[in-house]
Amino acid sequence: MSDRSEFDVLGVGNAIVDVLAEADDSFLQVEGITKGGMTLIDADRAVELYGRMGSAVEVSGGSAANTLAGVASLGGRGAYIGKVKDDQLGAVFAHDIRAIGVRFASRPLAEGPPTARCLILITPDAQRSMNTFLGACTLLTPDDIDPDLVRAASITYLEGYLFDRPDAKAAFFLAAEIAHAAGRKVALTLSDSFCVERHHGEFTRLVEKVDILFANEGEARALTGAATYEEAARTLSSVCPIVCVTHGARGSVVFADGVAHEIAAHPVERLVDTTGAGDLYAAGVLHGITAGRDIATAGRIGSIAAAEIIGQVGPRPRRSLRELVAQSLG
Amino acid sequence: MSDRSEFDVLGVGNAIVDVLAEADDSFLQVEGITKGGMTLIDADRAVELYGRMGSAVEVSGGSAANTLAGVASLGGRGAYIGKVKDDQLGAVFAHDIRAIGVRFASRPLAEGPPTARCLILITPDAQRSMNTFLGACTLLTPDDIDPDLVRAASITYLEGYLFDRPDAKAAFFLAAEIAHAAGRKVALTLSDSFCVERHHGEFTRLVEKVDILFANEGEARALTGAATYEEAARTLSSVCPIVCVTHGARGSVVFADGVAHEIAAHPVERLVDTTGAGDLYAAGVLHGITAGRDIATAGRIGSIAAAEIIGQVGPRPRRSLRELVAQSLG
Repeated sequence: MSDRSEFDVLGVGNAIVDVLAEADDSFLQVEGITKGGMTLIDADRAVELYGRMGSAVEVSGGSAANTLAGVASLGGRGAYIGKVKDDQLGAVFAHDIRAIGVRFASRPLAEGPPTARCLILITPDAQRSMNTFLGACTLLTPDDIDPDLVRAASITYLEGYLFDRPDAKAAFFLAAEIAHAAGRKVALTLSDSFCVERHHGEFTRLVEKVDILFANEGEARALTGAATYEEAARTLSSVCPIVCVTHGARGSVVFADGVAHEIAAHPVERLVDTTGAGDLYAAGVLHGITAGRDIATAGRIGSIAAAEIIGQVGPRPRRSLRELVAQSLG
Repeated sequence: MSDRSEFDVLGVGNAIVDVLAEADDSFLQVEGITKGGMTLIDADRAVELYGRMGSAVEVSGGSAANTLAGVASLGGRGAYIGKVKDDQLGAVFAHDIRAIGVRFASRPLAEGPPTARCLILITPDAQRSMNTFLGACTLLTPDDIDPDLVRAASITYLEGYLFDRPDAKAAFFLAAEIAHAAGRKVALTLSDSFCVERHHGEFTRLVEKVDILFANEGEARALTGAATYEEAARTLSSVCPIVCVTHGARGSVVFADGVAHEIAAHPVERLVDTTGAGDLYAAGVLHGITAGRDIATAGRIGSIAAAEIIGQVGPRPRRSLRELVAQSLG
């Protein structure tokens, strides 16, 4: 599938710098934060919450960007489209994604809202609760979709979080159209069950244009109305050729052309921070597919990558996933 | 000693955000970077080196600020004076030091150079090589020394790194004068042997006004010309009431009123990153002194704090040093 393509995977997503701090459960309660969820916050709330949270660490994040970091660490060729401002956090985001070998050429905004940040509170149970100020990301439009870049990538991977904004939705449909016209594949992660519920009709319409779909149980059920994750996955597989539904510590199921493959979760030595688990699972699967692996092996690579990321703080791999996969698969 | 003081320790230092990335020895060679050293770099070199180094993590740093983070983690009451710009990294620095309970009221620059950053390359042997762009820090002057804050602190702790600039030197002498006039103590860390050599005469003059002196072996020898670290420490102890000279993995020696106390290094499970070892040693000693501990116990607290910081990435403690010390001292 990767023949004659310059990139294995092109990601389109919210370009975000994560601000990670530890917090206890009572802090989440006082601040009214739903554990494990992603809440969009405005500029005032971002300042207020940052002022109350503990000492933090800044690392580049963003769901699809983390996936591309995973693809690069697995040895794949990646590119990324996302909107930052020409400010210090924008420079951090651009540096970090380029430093790992991902092409990133989106022009930063000269004016307007600052680079996005996600205030992430990590509780002692290793769960992360995300509070996202989208800032510059809200200004991503179809103009940011470089047609040559889409045509140059085997798979264009879209991050469902962007679906909260009409311009970004239009950008997604445009990217899908360009990719298919060039004989390329389109992948999508649903990202968030509440976002799926808010935009149910349009997500359903987009999924029909998707070749590889990623969702967790809640997102898959929100889109299909199914009672179980197996049923949701089966329903989605009647629309998309490849459907991957994750099920937390219990692993995942991958439907390929209607056939179900149960993928066991890869063992984790010590659960540290679940940030990026789904992003890295997608990285493994996408890399497996573009590297010509069978779908069950692609799923296993996804599990290995996800297990690595939840054993460390932060959403991007520090050790070479390529080496870890080589060791695990033998 | 802490009676009637509002703060145990007031730090005056370079307010810096650390940019930590892993690198191998060949990268240091190609870039001409001395392993384990601290090099001052200009804005152009900062951009160039950042562009070449790997994906990074941003955490608040600065030698004296790390020490104050240690004092706060030990349960002490801290304040800090340092210069940032009103930019995103300045906001990160200010947030992080306030979030751990340290008073920080220095007014950020509205114009001029950006907030300082230190590009830190961590090699596989856990050594850190620092490349510091001082930015806004170069504009710290005697005007930034709030006399009320100095009078309110049991110990004013000065970071030798600032000695490369005349205005900062003047700020140091002013702070020492205010502290002594109020019956308070002055502490100094020499910070860097090359800086000591560059400003040998003035360092000698400042040390005469210092009650508690911190140095590593190289710095102590650079200042005294002594052949061994014991001799250097003994020479300095004829000028300063308390002299602490660290000796890496071999521990430290503390001279108090002419009597030497050998302090063993605290065992480290796994050496991860030596960033902040000296800063946290100073935190432990200063906290021990202000908490009324005897000087040998203060030295042991320094060793415990230093051991904790070199077993993690980054220069500020994540676990409660107060609890670690309680466990270790029993």
